[in-house]
Amino acid sequence: MQQIVDDIAAEMLSRPDRGKVATYIPQLACVDPAHFGISVVMEDGTSYNAGDATTPFSIQSISKMFTLTMALGKMGDAVWKRVGREPSGDPFNSIVQLEVEHGRPRNPFINAGAIAIADAIMMGHEPKETLAEILQFMRFLSDDDSVYIDEKVARSEQLTGDRNASLAHFMASFGHFKNPVDKVLGVYFHHCSLAMTCHQLAKAGAFLVSDGTSQLINSKVVGPQRARRINSLMLLCGHYDGSGEFAFRVGLPGKSGVGGGILAVAPGKASIAVWSPGLDVVGNSHLGTLALEQLAEKTGWSVFAK
Amino acid sequence: MQQIVDDIAAEMLSRPDRGKVATYIPQLACVDPAHFGISVVMEDGTSYNAGDATTPFSIQSISKMFTLTMALGKMGDAVWKRVGREPSGDPFNSIVQLEVEHGRPRNPFINAGAIAIADAIMMGHEPKETLAEILQFMRFLSDDDSVYIDEKVARSEQLTGDRNASLAHFMASFGHFKNPVDKVLGVYFHHCSLAMTCHQLAKAGAFLVSDGTSQLINSKVVGPQRARRINSLMLLCGHYDGSGEFAFRVGLPGKSGVGGGILAVAPGKASIAVWSPGLDVVGNSHLGTLALEQLAEKTGWSVFAK
Amino acid sequence: MQQIVDDIAAEMLSRPDRGKVATYIPQLACVDPAHFGISVVMEDGTSYNAGDATTPFSIQSISKMFTLTMALGKMGDAVWKRVGREPSGDPFNSIVQLEVEHGRPRNPFINAGAIAIADAIMMGHEPKETLAEILQFMRFLSDDDSVYIDEKVARSEQLTGDRNASLAHFMASFGHFKNPVDKVLGVYFHHCSLAMTCHQLAKAGAFLVSDGTSQLINSKVVGPQRARRINSLMLLCGHYDGSGEFAFRVGLPGKSGVGGGILAVAPGKASIAVWSPGLDVVGNSHLGTLALEQLAEKTGWSVFAK
Amino acid sequence: MQQIVDDIAAEMLSRPDRGKVATYIPQLACVDPAHFGISVVMEDGTSYNAGDATTPFSIQSISKMFTLTMALGKMGDAVWKRVGREPSGDPFNSIVQLEVEHGRPRNPFINAGAIAIADAIMMGHEPKETLAEILQFMRFLSDDDSVYIDEKVARSEQLTGDRNASLAHFMASFGHFKNPVDKVLGVYFHHCSLAMTCHQLAKAGAFLVSDGTSQLINSKVVGPQRARRINSLMLLCGHYDGSGEFAFRVGLPGKSGVGGGILAVAPGKASIAVWSPGLDVVGNSHLGTLALEQLAEKTGWSVFAK
Repeated sequence: MQQIVDDIAAEMLSRPDRGKVATYIPQLACVDPAHFGISVVMEDGTSYNAGDATTPFSIQSISKMFTLTMALGKMGDAVWKRVGREPSGDPFNSIVQLEVEHGRPRNPFINAGAIAIADAIMMGHEPKETLAEILQFMRFLSDDDSVYIDEKVARSEQLTGDRNASLAHFMASFGHFKNPVDKVLGVYFHHCSLAMTCHQLAKAGAFLVSDGTSQLINSKVVGPQRARRINSLMLLCGHYDGSGEFAFRVGLPGKSGVGGGILAVAPGKASIAVWSPGLDVVGNSHLGTLALEQLAEKTGWSVFAK
Repeated sequence: MQQIVDDIAAEMLSRPDRGKVATYIPQLACVDPAHFGISVVMEDGTSYNAGDATTPFSIQSISKMFTLTMALGKMGDAVWKRVGREPSGDPFNSIVQLEVEHGRPRNPFINAGAIAIADAIMMGHEPKETLAEILQFMRFLSDDDSVYIDEKVARSEQLTGDRNASLAHFMASFGHFKNPVDKVLGVYFHHCSLAMTCHQLAKAGAFLVSDGTSQLINSKVVGPQRARRINSLMLLCGHYDGSGEFAFRVGLPGKSGVGGGILAVAPGKASIAVWSPGLDVVGNSHLGTLALEQLAEKTGWSVFAK
Repeated sequence: MQQIVDDIAAEMLSRPDRGKVATYIPQLACVDPAHFGISVVMEDGTSYNAGDATTPFSIQSISKMFTLTMALGKMGDAVWKRVGREPSGDPFNSIVQLEVEHGRPRNPFINAGAIAIADAIMMGHEPKETLAEILQFMRFLSDDDSVYIDEKVARSEQLTGDRNASLAHFMASFGHFKNPVDKVLGVYFHHCSLAMTCHQLAKAGAFLVSDGTSQLINSKVVGPQRARRINSLMLLCGHYDGSGEFAFRVGLPGKSGVGGGILAVAPGKASIAVWSPGLDVVGNSHLGTLALEQLAEKTGWSVFAK
Repeated sequence: MQQIVDDIAAEMLSRPDRGKVATYIPQLACVDPAHFGISVVMEDGTSYNAGDATTPFSIQSISKMFTLTMALGKMGDAVWKRVGREPSGDPFNSIVQLEVEHGRPRNPFINAGAIAIADAIMMGHEPKETLAEILQFMRFLSDDDSVYIDEKVARSEQLTGDRNASLAHFMASFGHFKNPVDKVLGVYFHHCSLAMTCHQLAKAGAFLVSDGTSQLINSKVVGPQRARRINSLMLLCGHYDGSGEFAFRVGLPGKSGVGGGILAVAPGKASIAVWSPGLDVVGNSHLGTLALEQLAEKTGWSVFAK
């Protein structure tokens, strides 16, 4: 396995086609596209790292899977009153679908859905408290207290966050919000600004490998059914309008972020995190996807294989 | 396993909530909603049947998975020039998406996509020849020469097929069609009218259980990668606008039809076909889905479990 | 007035910017873009012609105003059950709106609306009979028996008419059609293929100048209220997605066709027809619009002026 | 004329069908639906009032015609870089069209368009200054210093203004805004809260009757071409998704507001304001429209008549 990840990292670090770094958040635009990291954490906790696996990056939308997990823990199936669980067939920040479906986002992984989840997990608390709780959850899952929220990125998001503010006010106009729009956006922008390394992220995803119980931290995070369902949501909706493509090519549940990270899960096998800042046209890491495709090919990992 | 399918069949046959039989095709409207059948064909070929497992029904859109398989065999990846592989986020017969994406259907399982696939597999041949080829393929896969095309259903579809004619002419208006619209529709309406039993259908799906090679007929139908990709397409797009729901609840790749049938695949485990004519609001078999959900729970089969 | 139309014709014939001739109907694509004609028929019947005012051209969608007039004569306000009377905000052949509004076109001047009107005026008759009636109406209004239907253009439209066939089948799928789709399309393609000169067309529009009574043929064609309403529909919907632009620049009710003709009405003043085959990006005659803008400026004709 | 307006007022005050008062702004919801007022100001300044013609009401979107006039005065045709001039075919607060057309509203009378106009007229000034200027303009046009902005309504709008905030942030996300979103919204909510009587409003619209010069205040407000163009925009877009209906039934340019007011213009004849708080399904005054329809019938005023 170490050989496999080393080979993949070597190829990815040397490829000239690196995609385009996200530019709409200035703080992300200045990240060097030359980075590539990969971390594979096996079900038993053994780790294989290569490339920039221990460099922190902005996990962005990957955080949505974790806030969904928190929301399910707090509210159970009542979460599905706030968001649906169908692929959207639209870009990540589309507002059209919201209008058609009266302010209920199609799934928790498009921006509108994740903002609704942020509102749901606040439960009347202040942003500061909610963010402390999120941070604690991420440090617990990754077994690493150095996970942090990058305030510079959060501020940069807030300054350029008109599209997300538009989505939030739109949902609020249907009376769906329990907290003030600006506070909900504060929580959202900050959890998207979580900085983690591939290795931390792969460890944090370990509970989805083993039906909800992370062998790494020796802890049941969610029950088996919920773990499967989160995997199912990642497979169907984890890569925005490129979810079909990712399932087709990689065949594993995964969640991507515009920071260039992808967390993927091979049930019963391993949790995998990759990072390469350059994105493809639909906003997913170009080399990250390619790396996962190669890993899936070399290991035979696929939820669709016998 | 026999106990499991017997229990499921007994419950499903007795439940009062049976969904609503599709009415837009008169020949389907007269099917008795009291039917329920289930057939589980294990990887090694062992079969477990219960209820109306040997009563033929109209497989309708389930046929789309088989015509896609044929198209991939004939054209390889050139198929993806004709159709995409993303979930649509729209009902099965929506035309809106077609307009936005210039006549290229989002995936091969919405009606427009399957009509494009029908055009692709004709390759200049007459409908009669193409249909003979499809029928032969279905008989080969199910190892049963009694599979047939129900002409009455086909005629009924043609008489009420204005929406599909609209989709076909729409695509043709972009110059995408290689054959005359009415001939393509003839092929499409007829392959949707294939009549099969649960048992035949489960056998026909067996190649997807074992990375492309059906142990039942001892034959490599497609290669491993292609088998996985077909499974991936079924999981993401196999139940129209209810694909996310099916993946969430059942956790297996599957393809449904408005005749009330569903073919599901548990890789490495079994091919499963269920049939109950009553549909839910998005057009998938109400009790069929429930039966598969119970089967998945009782067996632990899920592509998302360890 | 003769001086005005002469000046306009002279300028338009010499301008290098001529727009682009419609290419999707092969028979239209071969029309020489150098043509320009203008005919002004005053309320009292006096005519002023210049340029190619007596060369026949394909009136295309301008015919929709006349078939609407016929439909109102046959069915009265029941017409509005078939089509709406709001601007569409979409291109002339969009199908999206049809889906949203369950097969009822927004107005009688987009293609779908005109096809629905064609179905309405057939009233169970054969295409041949309906077309004879339309032709008779046009000859009566223009007081000229040389008006004809160009069979070559009609055939060319039929051969390339997949988009319109798609619209028609789409509406038929809602059960809105009283006649077979192919017969309705036959009527539609043929009335769009009416060949008329600017002079004939301006005469045919004269009834809208004088509250429904054409002084030219000394005949009450429609009542005053209906005449105003037809004018209102032309102003709001007569130029597809460029209707606002035309009202803004010209300020007169008008109906354009992709053959490059425009019929405009200055109530109480004159009926005006212009023709120049080159179109602007939304499909209206580029120089025809400019000519009408100049005419409106020079005469002060505008429904919005005191 | 006095007899005509008296008759209309008498009928309208007594009719039981009064539409439904707008409820989404609490301050508007408490207006008594029993009101009806009408004021006709002839070109020469003579006035005919009846019913509640001198009771102030919230003019709401009618103000958009006046802010557009101001914007044209400040920026000329550069206004059209910010907003289009086509009917929208969508409800007044739709966001779908904005997404399709990259944040440029279709016309200045839908909410998004008017918010963009509010941004345009601010020109870097504070809301307070801009609002003072608007108020001064309205008092000048109506020749009445008692016109005021209802602060209670403005606050009520701001508190329930999530949809408009969504539209504004959406446009801002394309970089189209020159002023901070919250300040632009402040201007917008306040100018919508202008309180005027039918009589004041009819006087304020007088400049559109006479090619831009109000004989009432003896002042050229805009040039003839601009006056016609504003009339044209009102006719095509002044009643949201009911503009076609209003043009069809009334035949005059007009602008409605959800406070139940409508300002209509009969060029060369009169400026007319009506008020009845109950709305029809698309958000236009139910009895106000009916009253204008009757007035148009009795006087023969229609831009479409000879």
